[in-house]
Amino acid sequence: MPNPIRFGSLSITVESFVSVSLIISIDAMGGDHGPEVTIPASLDCLKNNPDLKLILVGDETVLKQRLAQSGCDYGDRLSIQHASECVGMDESPSKALKNKKDSSMRVAINLVRDGHAQACVSAGNTGALMATARFVLKMIPGVDRPAIISTLPSIYGHTHVLDLGANVDCTAEHLFQFAVMGTELVKAVENIENPKVGLLNIGEEDTKGNEQVKAAAKLLENSTLNYIGYVEGNSLNAGPVKVDLIVADGFVGNVALKSIEGAAKMIGTALKDAFNKNSMTKLVGLIAYPVLKLFKKRIDPRLYNGASFLGLRGLVIKSHGGADELAFKTAIQLAEVEVKKDVIRKISEQVQLTLARRESA
Amino acid sequence: MPNPIRFGSLSITVESFVSVSLIISIDAMGGDHGPEVTIPASLDCLKNNPDLKLILVGDETVLKQRLAQSGCDYGDRLSIQHASECVGMDESPSKALKNKKDSSMRVAINLVRDGHAQACVSAGNTGALMATARFVLKMIPGVDRPAIISTLPSIYGHTHVLDLGANVDCTAEHLFQFAVMGTELVKAVENIENPKVGLLNIGEEDTKGNEQVKAAAKLLENSTLNYIGYVEGNSLNAGPVKVDLIVADGFVGNVALKSIEGAAKMIGTALKDAFNKNSMTKLVGLIAYPVLKLFKKRIDPRLYNGASFLGLRGLVIKSHGGADELAFKTAIQLAEVEVKKDVIRKISEQVQLTLARRESA
Repeated sequence: MPNPIRFGSLSITVESFVSVSLIISIDAMGGDHGPEVTIPASLDCLKNNPDLKLILVGDETVLKQRLAQSGCDYGDRLSIQHASECVGMDESPSKALKNKKDSSMRVAINLVRDGHAQACVSAGNTGALMATARFVLKMIPGVDRPAIISTLPSIYGHTHVLDLGANVDCTAEHLFQFAVMGTELVKAVENIENPKVGLLNIGEEDTKGNEQVKAAAKLLENSTLNYIGYVEGNSLNAGPVKVDLIVADGFVGNVALKSIEGAAKMIGTALKDAFNKNSMTKLVGLIAYPVLKLFKKRIDPRLYNGASFLGLRGLVIKSHGGADELAFKTAIQLAEVEVKKDVIRKISEQVQLTLARRESA
Repeated sequence: MPNPIRFGSLSITVESFVSVSLIISIDAMGGDHGPEVTIPASLDCLKNNPDLKLILVGDETVLKQRLAQSGCDYGDRLSIQHASECVGMDESPSKALKNKKDSSMRVAINLVRDGHAQACVSAGNTGALMATARFVLKMIPGVDRPAIISTLPSIYGHTHVLDLGANVDCTAEHLFQFAVMGTELVKAVENIENPKVGLLNIGEEDTKGNEQVKAAAKLLENSTLNYIGYVEGNSLNAGPVKVDLIVADGFVGNVALKSIEGAAKMIGTALKDAFNKNSMTKLVGLIAYPVLKLFKKRIDPRLYNGASFLGLRGLVIKSHGGADELAFKTAIQLAEVEVKKDVIRKISEQVQLTLARRESA
């Protein structure tokens, strides 16, 4: 019996009696740390899930050497696909797309397009990853814009939120499409029938918000989605009620996400400073260490690493660039869950259904 | 020698050898708790600053009764101005403006307009307060839109940020004006010559952002302000470098502020849960109590309560609706600092200077 796959507070046990193999391509050179992080994380995922196959994409010599050092042997469950180039973390998306046709990122996505892998995971440059994924995989018919979705810890467990930065300007229709796609993802990975959808705004009253948000609210009210109304920024982590999915344009979503990261860092620093004040507080810190560790684990951002690109014909998971082994492992496990749950097919079908419903209306 | 006035990590000693009296009107009925909070907070401020005079605005009978209960007597430093109405916390701004001409909020603002007070503090409904303040006090010539500015704790001390919700859609020119006004406020209250100004965006590269933000960046680059470029959401509390003033449109600024509030609440809940897990962790919590108290004080939002409306011809400070005594006291002390530092005059002069510089360019 395999270990359950963990993603944040989500836990899914792989039903191994029907052994369906699950193949994920890994941009092994991506991120701030490259193979140093991607390889041990990959090996750990292979150990935890016997149904998993991984294709490491990158410089063959480097990858072979690192794998040899690890001493692990997963037979045909682990293969290497050579790619001669790397996309830099600050490289312009358009240049990466035009000039780096044999980058580890591009080749990893090609494997998804060609059916050799069911998902791709990369810690590389977000802009380049999105541009390449969109170019290689193409959009789901009916979806105007791809969006980035991820989860945040909340007092209720966790909250899914999109768009986290793919689109700086969104129309009401874009926001509506994000809600349709996000709902399918949440339904699939959380096993809930009617995820509660909130629209991020600066107040809960009908009169609040900009024109796009007000128009999106109308579209959501008239839809079959479980739309609960406007929610404010605090609902991302600790609102008055549980919300499963929060929809925003990419500018607002990204600023909110980064603001939360900053707040967490500041609070963490203040806590550390208080315990480091003098030798007495340091002693108290030693006594409190197990409790503080427990607390840290509850909100550890590494357990929430991994954002999915929605709206594409294939599954691409973006890991934080600075991800360590645990964080990158979480991103691979998110890919495992979304492949198992057939998220891309479900989103495609739901988009077609929504379009058909509109045409017949 | 009076006590120094504290506001967040800011501390200003009133130079009492030139005893200039300082008169502030208090919307004593505003907020979730009304006189229960506004009166003790007011009395505490009077105790701390012998140059301060307060005018409590609201139902005379209620206020007199509460003051009698307190047993305090500040002679002519504390007076009551009767107002027969109250603006509800959920009342529509336009209705409050039209129908509540004798509200405690309106009368408190009238006192500023008529020169009987130098600032007004209210914990009432933000929308109604802004609409009333704008109607009664009028805008500074040359300023298109009022904005709401406040401070947030940061790993560097604190950061000023505007707009926090007055304007859902902003042009580049609006954002530029916010930067001009905010800079004057920061210069005055922080005693720094060239506050560093950042523009809130979803990345630090020139290519990032929406059209308004990119155009505002051009205006700021060509100005005399100390513009340091784009900053991301994490810079509000814990960015890579210290920023004194962060400029955003009111939608983004408000979502960021509320997201930070939510993150702080979630982290606080997780910390409490960890220490409340069992009798052993509870015991550890007792031992760690003084350290946790120290930590809590460092990021206590009550010590950052109070947002200033910029762009009006008079000073209005908005307190959080749910403010307790300490929080409301902080808001009054913010008004004291801004009056002493002559913030409104400095902003008006700077706006005229900026306009003149443009005309001559």
